Amino acid sequence: MSSQKAWAIVAGVGPGTGASVARRFAKEYSVALLARNPSNYEPLVKEIESAGGKAVGISTDCADGKSVKNAFDQLKKEMGGAPLAAAIYNVGGRFIRKPFLELNEEEFESGWEANGRGGFHFSQAVLPLLLEALKGSLEHPPTLIFTSATAAMKGSANCSSFATGKFAMRALAQSLAREFGPKGIHVSHAIIDGVIDIERTKHYQFDHPDAKIKPEAIADSYWYLHTQPRTCFTNELDIRPYIEKW
Amino acid sequence: MSSQKAWAIVAGVGPGTGASVARRFAKEYSVALLARNPSNYEPLVKEIESAGGKAVGISTDCADGKSVKNAFDQLKKEMGGAPLAAAIYNVGGRFIRKPFLELNEEEFESGWEANGRGGFHFSQAVLPLLLEALKGSLEHPPTLIFTSATAAMKGSANCSSFATGKFAMRALAQSLAREFGPKGIHVSHAIIDGVIDIERTKHYQFDHPDAKIKPEAIADSYWYLHTQPRTCFTNELDIRPYIEKW
Amino acid sequence: MSSQKAWAIVAGVGPGTGASVARRFAKEYSVALLARNPSNYEPLVKEIESAGGKAVGISTDCADGKSVKNAFDQLKKEMGGAPLAAAIYNVGGRFIRKPFLELNEEEFESGWEANGRGGFHFSQAVLPLLLEALKGSLEHPPTLIFTSATAAMKGSANCSSFATGKFAMRALAQSLAREFGPKGIHVSHAIIDGVIDIERTKHYQFDHPDAKIKPEAIADSYWYLHTQPRTCFTNELDIRPYIEKW
Amino acid sequence: MSSQKAWAIVAGVGPGTGASVARRFAKEYSVALLARNPSNYEPLVKEIESAGGKAVGISTDCADGKSVKNAFDQLKKEMGGAPLAAAIYNVGGRFIRKPFLELNEEEFESGWEANGRGGFHFSQAVLPLLLEALKGSLEHPPTLIFTSATAAMKGSANCSSFATGKFAMRALAQSLAREFGPKGIHVSHAIIDGVIDIERTKHYQFDHPDAKIKPEAIADSYWYLHTQPRTCFTNELDIRPYIEKW
Repeated sequence: MSSQKAWAIVAGVGPGTGASVARRFAKEYSVALLARNPSNYEPLVKEIESAGGKAVGISTDCADGKSVKNAFDQLKKEMGGAPLAAAIYNVGGRFIRKPFLELNEEEFESGWEANGRGGFHFSQAVLPLLLEALKGSLEHPPTLIFTSATAAMKGSANCSSFATGKFAMRALAQSLAREFGPKGIHVSHAIIDGVIDIERTKHYQFDHPDAKIKPEAIADSYWYLHTQPRTCFTNELDIRPYIEKW
Repeated sequence: MSSQKAWAIVAGVGPGTGASVARRFAKEYSVALLARNPSNYEPLVKEIESAGGKAVGISTDCADGKSVKNAFDQLKKEMGGAPLAAAIYNVGGRFIRKPFLELNEEEFESGWEANGRGGFHFSQAVLPLLLEALKGSLEHPPTLIFTSATAAMKGSANCSSFATGKFAMRALAQSLAREFGPKGIHVSHAIIDGVIDIERTKHYQFDHPDAKIKPEAIADSYWYLHTQPRTCFTNELDIRPYIEKW
Repeated sequence: MSSQKAWAIVAGVGPGTGASVARRFAKEYSVALLARNPSNYEPLVKEIESAGGKAVGISTDCADGKSVKNAFDQLKKEMGGAPLAAAIYNVGGRFIRKPFLELNEEEFESGWEANGRGGFHFSQAVLPLLLEALKGSLEHPPTLIFTSATAAMKGSANCSSFATGKFAMRALAQSLAREFGPKGIHVSHAIIDGVIDIERTKHYQFDHPDAKIKPEAIADSYWYLHTQPRTCFTNELDIRPYIEKW
Repeated sequence: MSSQKAWAIVAGVGPGTGASVARRFAKEYSVALLARNPSNYEPLVKEIESAGGKAVGISTDCADGKSVKNAFDQLKKEMGGAPLAAAIYNVGGRFIRKPFLELNEEEFESGWEANGRGGFHFSQAVLPLLLEALKGSLEHPPTLIFTSATAAMKGSANCSSFATGKFAMRALAQSLAREFGPKGIHVSHAIIDGVIDIERTKHYQFDHPDAKIKPEAIADSYWYLHTQPRTCFTNELDIRPYIEKW
């Protein structure tokens, strides 16, 4: 039915960027919130529903193909044929800073699992739905956004796990943008460069006000990306607080 | 007076990006339109004024320091103390594609003149006004945007004039972003990658619809950049049509 | 004993770059050749030994931590306390070109396994030996070189497996260069951009002579990197035939 | 005559990189040394001649087309038809670190003049000679190397003059590499990242030994670049001391 509200899916919903992105997209779309731990999406589902929006949370481990398959089987029932307008992959994984020779394989792999393998399974699940949505009459081009970091551009000392993961995420985003862009899907890689202003970073002190990135502002930037027409796609942008060194 | 409408200045107003950017910013601000040839801004001034906006055009050669000084002397009188909210440097210069050994000095220098020297004089004129505007209560951070191109990222064969100019423009934009960002000025470098949909490119045929960039969409992206709060500045973004190879 | 000949280890010895690198380093060092399949190193071991050099081959799957551990247990016995002067990671993995939605997890992961996980295990095995070698009196700084590709810089359509692997390899190389460089280890990332001139590419026809990269020339470049003094380390270089488009 | 010794030209001969490069290339070739001030090349001409080499110095301002023309008119007489094997553009210009709004046009332009305009005139003078040399039987591909800096990759605050110049130099080097590479000329851009160990930097103190780049090592790297066969051209490499942060 053309009258069905479209959906947005946000993977990696926690207290920061993911939640803000979900709130922003919930103003226009029904939203599906994926996180491994239900405690990460449950309060947000309630909040969005209370505000008159529609939200469902599904416990999902994006690095696990079966878990993603189960989540999307369930989600498709919820969606009931409504189109998917946007998908945001906001899974970052652990940030491990450790001398290289003290890393074990499991720690080193964690960057890849969250950013590479997880990005793969998420993209394989959402791209068929985004392609399907092209047949309808959505206002904006179907959109897939990856939340990335400075570590996608520079491999710093003691950060090989996170950097290999984020470099891989950037490669994936570029490859998908070049394959699915010409079909009309907008794929974008957002380089978040700075400390995000959330509960966990409350104790980080800076000499200047507004020195941390507001997650609501990141959400606005993702919404802007989503609204770009296909004659004018931004495939990569950086985002940083005005006082950040770069 | 705090009730005075703020201004936006657009240098390099012609039939494409510059005019669309001027129209977009004129919805909120008084606009000053700079171009060497009055025929490039006169119809636009009339159009904006007819639509209820305020616009002034000033004949300016940005590569000439005296011409820029004269233009801003005149402009400051027009502004009458109202703040400068945004400045867009949209001067591109000639695109010369020629074997290197056939270029003369004047041709080679033209890329630098338009993008490097012109960017210098324009930035020196607008930055004091943007800094001054910080003292007021503008809704959005004062903004300086440079219209750039793929040639800022890759020096192609037979394009050394344009590429040296655009590489230099990117260096200037980065240097200014790092110096003036921490003061609260938002400096951004926009990489336009594709053919812009204007009268002059009407005969370019593509196999796909929407294959050229709509200047209105570029204008929307610049407006979005301008509205970013200082906790979330984008210093560089690319813009291309969905079917563009990159 | 200070009179012991130093060693070089080359992982990923096949008919192309790996073999040429091994031959080049075997002129100065004893060489250890790692490959999954003994048929890949056996002829080369014979060839080097016949020419008066010293070579040992060890069957190793670098993506498998246990296999790498076993290989280095054996290798350390062979080395008998002689220093490790250079280690070259030349494992590339399969090049898969396929629409993204037709990739299965195993295919997608293969790029990471060869370049990311394999690079991790190899680096964890050789770095302690390279650090140990710093205590001796080697002529050149101990060196770790990664053989990479254009896919480390650009994620092309239909190449997400290879590109995520090579981007990750670049991140790893950068991170190790920044951690181990200041200790005196030279870590370098070599971007091979073009077709390598080996048996398997014999049928590739080009309009120009010398259009494929000679593996011997790559080997010379690696040897040059190895001989750079620590006041002058090159951490990244590209290598391409003169007629290559880039 | 085929028996004539080939030449190398080094522009920008002072106490550091230029002199070391000249000494290195003088081992194989006759060398022409260009500098604005004869005091910069005269001692070196004597030194090379005393060591049995052949050197001529010519006072040249590379940013001035007429000066370059005069220099090459004189130089061609000296060369007497012998081929040009290599040309190194080592002119850097002044390094100005100053708040942007305190720069005057002459200061801002100085980066472009040394790196952009000077690179243009030098390249226009040497490329016909390098192309001519292709017809002979030189051992190595004719080579054009640009000495660049980190400022070619990043525009830092207060460094817009130097950064715009070096970005432009990189654009020029890329454009020439893509145009003249397929003809057989090797064009390379060398990013020198660190303090060079010369008289003027003697008082820079570091916590580590070998913390400054030896100019002789840079010269060796240029010589290595020159010796690469055309199947294996390096078009860009970075060079930094092992302890450098990057």
